[in-house]
Amino acid sequence: MKKLLREILKEITPTEEEHELEKRIIERIKKKLEKMGVRPVLVGSLAKDTDLRGDKDIDIFIMFHKDVSREELEERALEIGRKLFKELNARYEIDYAEHPYVRGFYRGYNVEIVPCYETKEPRSAVDRTPYHTRYVRKKIRENKNLSDEIRLLKQFMKGIGVYGAEAKVQGFSGYLTELLVINYGSFENTLKAATKWKFNQILDPENLWEDKEPLKYFFPDASLIVIDPIDENRNAAAAVSRQRLAEFIVASIEFLKSPGREFFFPPEERLPSKRELSRRMRSRGTKLMGILFKHSRINPNSLYPQLRKTAIALKKSIDEFDFRILKFDLWTDENNLSVILLDFEVWRLPRIRHHLGPPIDKNLKDQENFIEKYRAYRPYIKNGRWVVDTEREFKKIEQLLPRLIEEKKGFGKNLRSAKKIEIIEDRDILKIDNKGFLRFMDRFLSPL
Amino acid sequence: MKKLLREILKEITPTEEEHELEKRIIERIKKKLEKMGVRPVLVGSLAKDTDLRGDKDIDIFIMFHKDVSREELEERALEIGRKLFKELNARYEIDYAEHPYVRGFYRGYNVEIVPCYETKEPRSAVDRTPYHTRYVRKKIRENKNLSDEIRLLKQFMKGIGVYGAEAKVQGFSGYLTELLVINYGSFENTLKAATKWKFNQILDPENLWEDKEPLKYFFPDASLIVIDPIDENRNAAAAVSRQRLAEFIVASIEFLKSPGREFFFPPEERLPSKRELSRRMRSRGTKLMGILFKHSRINPNSLYPQLRKTAIALKKSIDEFDFRILKFDLWTDENNLSVILLDFEVWRLPRIRHHLGPPIDKNLKDQENFIEKYRAYRPYIKNGRWVVDTEREFKKIEQLLPRLIEEKKGFGKNLRSAKKIEIIEDRDILKIDNKGFLRFMDRFLSPL
Repeated sequence: MKKLLREILKEITPTEEEHELEKRIIERIKKKLEKMGVRPVLVGSLAKDTDLRGDKDIDIFIMFHKDVSREELEERALEIGRKLFKELNARYEIDYAEHPYVRGFYRGYNVEIVPCYETKEPRSAVDRTPYHTRYVRKKIRENKNLSDEIRLLKQFMKGIGVYGAEAKVQGFSGYLTELLVINYGSFENTLKAATKWKFNQILDPENLWEDKEPLKYFFPDASLIVIDPIDENRNAAAAVSRQRLAEFIVASIEFLKSPGREFFFPPEERLPSKRELSRRMRSRGTKLMGILFKHSRINPNSLYPQLRKTAIALKKSIDEFDFRILKFDLWTDENNLSVILLDFEVWRLPRIRHHLGPPIDKNLKDQENFIEKYRAYRPYIKNGRWVVDTEREFKKIEQLLPRLIEEKKGFGKNLRSAKKIEIIEDRDILKIDNKGFLRFMDRFLSPL
Repeated sequence: MKKLLREILKEITPTEEEHELEKRIIERIKKKLEKMGVRPVLVGSLAKDTDLRGDKDIDIFIMFHKDVSREELEERALEIGRKLFKELNARYEIDYAEHPYVRGFYRGYNVEIVPCYETKEPRSAVDRTPYHTRYVRKKIRENKNLSDEIRLLKQFMKGIGVYGAEAKVQGFSGYLTELLVINYGSFENTLKAATKWKFNQILDPENLWEDKEPLKYFFPDASLIVIDPIDENRNAAAAVSRQRLAEFIVASIEFLKSPGREFFFPPEERLPSKRELSRRMRSRGTKLMGILFKHSRINPNSLYPQLRKTAIALKKSIDEFDFRILKFDLWTDENNLSVILLDFEVWRLPRIRHHLGPPIDKNLKDQENFIEKYRAYRPYIKNGRWVVDTEREFKKIEQLLPRLIEEKKGFGKNLRSAKKIEIIEDRDILKIDNKGFLRFMDRFLSPL
């Protein structure tokens, strides 16, 4: 394993030239910003020496005094950012996090100029970032090895697909990765520890809480709880979903059992032909339905949660009509096209269905009304409830889905107003001409 | 309502002639038994003056001193019974309750000669019967009206199909009916009270328990608890199923809302033709499967519970294989033929199925084994558990049922050893040539 990790490190540590170039770019930007009268602070993995080779992100915060109003801060930051990139002759755009900020593209780098307050009591999420940077730098100064170990864990998490706190991934942020290595001392120790994690595992690297028990109740929805060393009331692992946590645990188990470079650099899998995908589709014997959303661009951090919400709402409605979904998933090109894929175990139902009435030992008035209303169907009692066998409105899923899409019950806000929503079935789904989508289909369809 | 009840009473009260004849028969039998040196006691509804017109049951207990051994009691009782009916020139047979006893058929009556101990501390269920008789007689002596009121309630319960504590009905015994009227004072008051019953209702007519709360825990499985006035530790309503209780409550509601003689004397419904039943069967759109048991005679009090047990075991197995039953029921001719009827909402399934593996945060060894075993199927994680999509063994219910019948898992004892078990489908089910069965099918198939 030692040898393997040394090799991986050699591949992922930024080169001298890379760092030289970055240093020059940063110096140039800093000087320009200082001339504009603001204090720039380099944050992020570059600042902490935990960046990976080929990372093209430069994050610079500009600090404002806490007495500056929010409006003024936002206005001035945009003004400064725009001016900066104009002077650099660089393309730029406005993006939104806690505040709007300017992102420019300069000599191949993605440069973010983010405003924040210079305060010990953060007013917004970004205000903590400079403190995070300071904390990690201090830890690395105390133990020079940590940089390498953090780079290994980041690359490992990238390789197995759990890296990133954004809505698409719902995984481990860079800072969380750093905290884990700081806490456990090395890449290997982190993996070893993870194999013993339970859901709702609690870590408190700086031991800010004497009694950890109550933390479960402070963060009831968390799969993993990692107390932020610079803010005892914040869970640095809040974004980690149960699914990504599980995948990390399992990958840790597997890697420790038989280490290999494919964990860090998974080979791109052969993409099966449409013919092959179509064969696998048929062979499942299920009914596959795709809901196609054509929409204007939606920020991915809003789009993914909306797609998840919509898929879950659809599943719930479908369950209520007695159809049965085997599995479902979602995919988007992060631009104009999103797909919710539903795979049905039961998509045809008989004409007759149970219509459940009130329970026998509750409100009598309800019972009388029920019996009166359905007398012709001969109501009967089953498991202490009234039941009639009545006619089913939707006997085929092809009848139900259009209705659900018309109603849009529980759909995400921007998906409700999508320009077009289409239903596609079985083989027609493969007509979606996007390599990313076909890759998604490859994963969705089992190899059977 | 008064007028209706008077009319019903006129129809159900035994005639003078009936009672004269019964009196003569009883006298004759008593004399013969006394000559044989035992003490006969008339019990049952005749003794309590709560019998219905046309009832053909005469129950005579012969009392033994408590020092007589059980073996001697049984032997002597059979001997006496046989001798009695031989002298009367009557056909007779041996039946079994708590003890074996002799049942004879004399002048159109069903005469039971049952041995029991003369003791205040009952050794067996039948020992309480003479005390029950004494208790009810005393209550009726104190309030002559009770006889009529009890007869009305019995006929009402017969009419709506909840009368009888035997396994087939799981309803209200004669004694329980008497206790209800004694407790509430009249037929109408009993019905009024029933409309307010909850499940696990507790009645204690003689107020033998100061605190009724613990009774729920003494009789945890009871739908209705009626403390036996002659034995505070016995629930006189133990036989009443939730289903029959619910039916009684509902009939009470409906009768009080619009009283009518059809509750007491339901008109025999027109039996639809096989063609009509077949049409209704098809129109449901479900899959109907019958399991036909051909067996030697089984005592109905054993047969019905065994059929219920078997049907529930079958349903459970079927659920495990992802098929879905809409409803099921059972029927028997109480002789050689029994049928379990299963009506399927889902009877076809796709080739692929979810094979659930171990949860992610439990035993690691199990997880490794699972992943190893199913590697080719690409195990994935869903809701915190390992899952693989594998091939389903049974895609049609017609493949699964024969296997379940071969295994006989959870089948009733005597049904396991049935001479023949057959599976019949859809229209073939109507080939069972029995009017009772077709009536059952008529109820089973909804009128839609």
